[in-house]
This record gives sequence, structure tokens and C-alpha cells, in this order.
Amino acid sequence: MEKDFYGDLRLGILGGGQLGRMLIQEAINLNVSISILDPDADAPCKKLCDKFEVGSLSDFETVYKFGKQVDMLTIEIEKVNVDALEKLEEEGVIVFPQARVIRLIQDKGLQKQFFKQNDIPTAPFQLFSSRDNLKECLIPFPYIQKLRKDGYDGKGVYKVVSETDLADAFDAPSLTEQWIDFEKEIAVIVARNDNGEVSAFPLVEMEFNPAANLVEFLISPSTLPFEIQQRAEQLAIKIAEDLQIVGLLAVEMFLTKENEILVNELAPRPHNSGHHTIEGNLTSQFSQHLRAIFNLPLGNSSARSNAVMINLLGDKSYEGLAVYEGLEEIMAEEGVYVHLYGKKFTKPFRKMGHVTVINEDREKAIELARKVQNTIKVIA
Amino acid sequence: MEKDFYGDLRLGILGGGQLGRMLIQEAINLNVSISILDPDADAPCKKLCDKFEVGSLSDFETVYKFGKQVDMLTIEIEKVNVDALEKLEEEGVIVFPQARVIRLIQDKGLQKQFFKQNDIPTAPFQLFSSRDNLKECLIPFPYIQKLRKDGYDGKGVYKVVSETDLADAFDAPSLTEQWIDFEKEIAVIVARNDNGEVSAFPLVEMEFNPAANLVEFLISPSTLPFEIQQRAEQLAIKIAEDLQIVGLLAVEMFLTKENEILVNELAPRPHNSGHHTIEGNLTSQFSQHLRAIFNLPLGNSSARSNAVMINLLGDKSYEGLAVYEGLEEIMAEEGVYVHLYGKKFTKPFRKMGHVTVINEDREKAIELARKVQNTIKVIA
Repeated sequence: MEKDFYGDLRLGILGGGQLGRMLIQEAINLNVSISILDPDADAPCKKLCDKFEVGSLSDFETVYKFGKQVDMLTIEIEKVNVDALEKLEEEGVIVFPQARVIRLIQDKGLQKQFFKQNDIPTAPFQLFSSRDNLKECLIPFPYIQKLRKDGYDGKGVYKVVSETDLADAFDAPSLTEQWIDFEKEIAVIVARNDNGEVSAFPLVEMEFNPAANLVEFLISPSTLPFEIQQRAEQLAIKIAEDLQIVGLLAVEMFLTKENEILVNELAPRPHNSGHHTIEGNLTSQFSQHLRAIFNLPLGNSSARSNAVMINLLGDKSYEGLAVYEGLEEIMAEEGVYVHLYGKKFTKPFRKMGHVTVINEDREKAIELARKVQNTIKVIA
Repeated sequence: MEKDFYGDLRLGILGGGQLGRMLIQEAINLNVSISILDPDADAPCKKLCDKFEVGSLSDFETVYKFGKQVDMLTIEIEKVNVDALEKLEEEGVIVFPQARVIRLIQDKGLQKQFFKQNDIPTAPFQLFSSRDNLKECLIPFPYIQKLRKDGYDGKGVYKVVSETDLADAFDAPSLTEQWIDFEKEIAVIVARNDNGEVSAFPLVEMEFNPAANLVEFLISPSTLPFEIQQRAEQLAIKIAEDLQIVGLLAVEMFLTKENEILVNELAPRPHNSGHHTIEGNLTSQFSQHLRAIFNLPLGNSSARSNAVMINLLGDKSYEGLAVYEGLEEIMAEEGVYVHLYGKKFTKPFRKMGHVTVINEDREKAIELARKVQNTIKVIA
């Protein structure tokens, strides 16, 4: 495309949540005119763009009409109408990531087949069209059943420990996957521009809290052996190249107790596992996504310091107008960066914001992150 | 004030230029609802706030009515109607910086008198009401005549070398000031919150280009002797405390060839000499201003790395719809951060954006800044 992207280029974003919001914070630096489509009239991006349209992201006509008004379309959520995106591509609207990439990633079954076809290590799996078929599953118990479509943040996932669990399994197109007793969840975000330039962010680790049975926070950069870091980053780069994606690709992986890396899932957009890059890396994931889709040279993705990212989730006992407790106490600490997402209403486990802690000393950053987690509460 | 600043606090900003724009980029993280008043219907903040109102900043009624709709007012330009701000303060609207501080700083004559009363070193001066009175000036030639009000970016300043220059001097309230043959222009930005907590950013140096007779760029942090840095920072802190300002205060100073520090001018708001803090320091000046006016704990202002800031000025030979040349080439370099201000039209020397270069190596950062300066052109 012409390189007059700044000033008069109209960029449409499908989805107006926190990812769109942080993308706008960065796009402001390049004079990009932003239009947003989101079903929620109170979406976090509402007041921060040139044009905000309320409408369904899965409706063909809505997405198509929205796309006809912009020069380039991108996404901050992959659950969008891909048929409309394909028609828009045919009619000359630039769609990055490409419609075919979004279609593949929307379907966890197609993702798994893609991994297999491209020799990308992943847990053994089988595809099923309904609950009844699950009886034919050859994977030994325990295994995981995942909906092929529309699962997110742990939804659409079901653990099958024995035959008796089958009665409550999802009755929809799904895949089953061998239960991985992993050592660690790790992730790499990679960017690719239309010139084919590819750049990976350093590997990050998720810190698991066994008591709460939840990912507690994310640590960047990883201190796993260099060989593992390299293997994970090369794997992410290979996937971006195999897909020929333009834009960001988040690659979530398991590190097994035998130091094997298995790819779990992909997301073709800025991702929760990259929020720390805003303060922690030389280039943020949001800046990198813009560079990639505008076919600009990619930025240096190196870490500037240790960073720990904590999600601010709605407290499990509250629902209603959000109130943030403990923010002031936390802002008195050094190297603490608060990002609220502008969501009016909280509900249990809703992502209301995040905090990044940076420190030269990794252990101090982790310690402070624990304090953040124990201090800030999102209630109503 | 109540500490429920996030979520429902309505912050009004007088002025919707680049300073307001970068303040909004930061305010997004705290869920602050922003209203902007600016005379220009196409101001850089136009599309980025909850409410954008077109109106005169110097008109009493306009500023008063605007202020009645918000909980707190701040400024990004000091040329505003202070009578309206005083009335708003009386009626319970929080105005930070305070109206009395803005009134003092608006008038360079009052600034000078304030320096004198508070033992703040500054160049010798005299006040005059008209051109005719200038004959009584006791300061030896050459001296500088400055308009007491409304001068900015070098406007409103006139050098008087001999008697014959008096004919073209300003015929308005002015001050004359001894000509300072300074070694360097330096600046410190300091923040003070309502609890009285004060924090200074590290001293920065302006690099002067003798050929162009212009400040070429800004370097942070300074490499001047520690004693000088401390003296400058303590001086800035003293001024903030003497003024009892709440918010940011930019203190521009001269370092003389005899290592004397003379305070030149104050600005009670985010300032051009603090743009490098976005990437170069642990806390940016914009984040610090919000912390100060919301009476939150101030952030750590230390430098994270060497940073050089270059203003992107409209080319002297062009006027019209802005076109940016050379951006892509510059974005291929490491550690280069482009900030465009969203101004549709360029004119000679208009501030259209800035670029910050960061590097562990100070000389490399300066070298790259020179390249930026020679590569990017804002034409029409």
C-alpha cells in the first residue's frame, strides 16, 4: 500500500475492548484515524476513536458495511464474520490479519490440523462432531475436550477423567486432546509484516498458583535455559511464516516436564501475554502490530527490564458499577504501572485492567506483583 | 478530594493541543473522563475525549461555563482567562495548577518580581509600561526586551543592541533583562501534589546549533557535574514549594560560563522539555501531572536510559496539508519513537510532532538524533 498511512488512513478495528483501547493509545502517535465496531454501546474504546459503531461482529452485513468505510481492517477479537472479511478483501479493503488466517484460528480443530500438517509439535488430538462420537475417542483418560469454536479464557474446555464424565461433555463439534501434565505455560508473541520481516518478543512464563488453580501472573523475560527460549521463539517464528500472517501472532505453549514444547493455541492479534511489553520492552506489542499491518520496519522487541504482569479481575463476589480498592497504595510503589480498561461494570473474573511491575531485580518484581495482587480489589 | 478519581471524575483541560493529547494517552490508563476546550475545531485532542468544545480560552463566560461542567480543571497552555478560574475555585471546582499560580506565570514581570522576592537567581531586570519609558533603562547594551504577556516560542522577545534599536522595540508592558552570554540552556521539570510531596525530573540540556541559531535537541539526563545538577534540581524544587503549586512546573534556566544558574522562565504544565520522559524515564511527565493533580503518590522520575528529543517542525518553505517525509526510514532504526500530533496543516516552524531516541550510549543517541533531524521533513 501507499506509505501515506499517517494522517488520512482510516483503520477499522473489529472489537472495541481493552486490546483496541491500548492499540488506540499507540495509534495516536501515528495520526491514524480509527473506526471501531463493537456490540457493546459502552465498550472501552467508545470515546477514543473517530467513529464508534454499535453492531454485531458476527453479522455479515454489519461487518461488511463497516469494512466498506475504511482503508484497512484489523481485529482485536477473532470471533468475527470471516465471510464478510473475505468479500471485503476481494473488493480491495486490506484485512490484516488475513481472513483465511482468522478462519483457521477461529476453529481449534483446523488449528490442530494445521499444526500436524506443518510438523508443529502439539498434544495428540482427535476431532468429533458431537457428544455421541466421543465414545470412539482413542486418547486414554484423562483427556481434555475443547469446543472447536468460541471458547475463550478457559470457557469451552472440559476435562474427561472417566467414562462417567462423558454425559456432561459438550454436544457440539469438538476436539479431544491428551491431558498434558506440563511443567509451565509459556508464550511467544511474534510479528510479521507484508515484506515478510518477522520478529519475536522474548519468551514469557506464566506463574501458576497451585492453591488457586489459576495463572497468577506473567513474567518477562523467561529465565528458562537459553536453548528452550530459542526453541520456543523459533517455533513461533515458523508458525508465523507457515501462516504467512501479517500482524501479531500470540503462540501459547506448554513446556512439559521432559522439556518438550507443545503448541497449545494461537491468537492472531495483540494478546494478554504481551501487555507487559508496554513498559517492559523496547517496542510494545501494540506498536509492533501497527508497524506490521502498515508494512513498516518492525521494532526491536528486546526486554528493557524484568516485568511482571498481573490481570485485575473482577472480584468473584461482586457485580455492578466497578470500584477499585487499593490503587493508591500500589501507586506509591516504584515501577508500578496501572492500566484500567474503562469498563463501567464489574462481574466475577471480568478483566477490568492490568498492572505491570518493572524492576532490575526479578525477585523484587515478583514480590511486588504479589503485593499488587493482595492489595487491589475490583468490587462494586 | 475523594479518591474515587478513576471512573467517574470529569477532568476538564483548557487547551486541546499536543500536550493535552499526550495527557489523554496517559489518562486513559486511569479511566478519567476528559472534556477539552479549545478555539480550534480541528485541535489534536478533538477525537480523543468524552467532550470536545470549541471556544475561546481567554473569554470569561466560555471558560466559566466549561469549568462548571467538570469536577477538576487543568491546563495545557497558560494563556487562559484566570478571572473565570478564580470564580470557579470559589465555587468549589478544583483548579490545578491554581488560578493564582497561572496569573503570576502569565506575566513575565510578576515572575521576575517573584524570583527577586524569593531569592531565586535570575538575570537583572527592569519593568516598563511602554516603549517611551525604555529610555530610562539602566541595564547596559546589549539587553533583551520581553513582552510581559503572551510571548511564547521566541515570540515577544527583542534584542536591543544600541539606542537606534529602541525605535522598533515593543510598545507594550515589557521587561528588560541583561543579555546573558550563557554556556547552556538547561531545564528541570518538578511535580508537587496537594499533600506537599515534591519530585524533580533529572536535569536536561538543550543542545544548541550555532549555525542554525536554534535549539537543536534536548538531551536527558545531563552529564554536567553532579553539583550543578543538584543545584538546578534543588532550585526547581524550591520554586515549586515557594509557589505551593499543585501539578507540574517546568523551570527553564541558563547555565552561565561561570557555572552560575539563572532562572529564565516558568511553565505550570507539561512542557516540551519533558517529552523524552515518555520513553526515557520511569514515570512520564504526563503521568506525573495526573498523579500530582489527583493527589496520588508521585512516581519515580529517574531516567531509564539516555534519551534525545527532537521536535518535528513544519519546514520553513511549506504551508498546507501536512505530509511527513522520511518517517519509514527513521522507524527502521532501533530505539526511535515517533509522536505525531495530529495536526492537519503545517506551516513554517509549527510543532507537528517529536521523536525521542533512546540508547544506552549517549553519543549514539545523539548521532541518531542528528540522522532523524536530517531525514524527516514535514512538508505540504
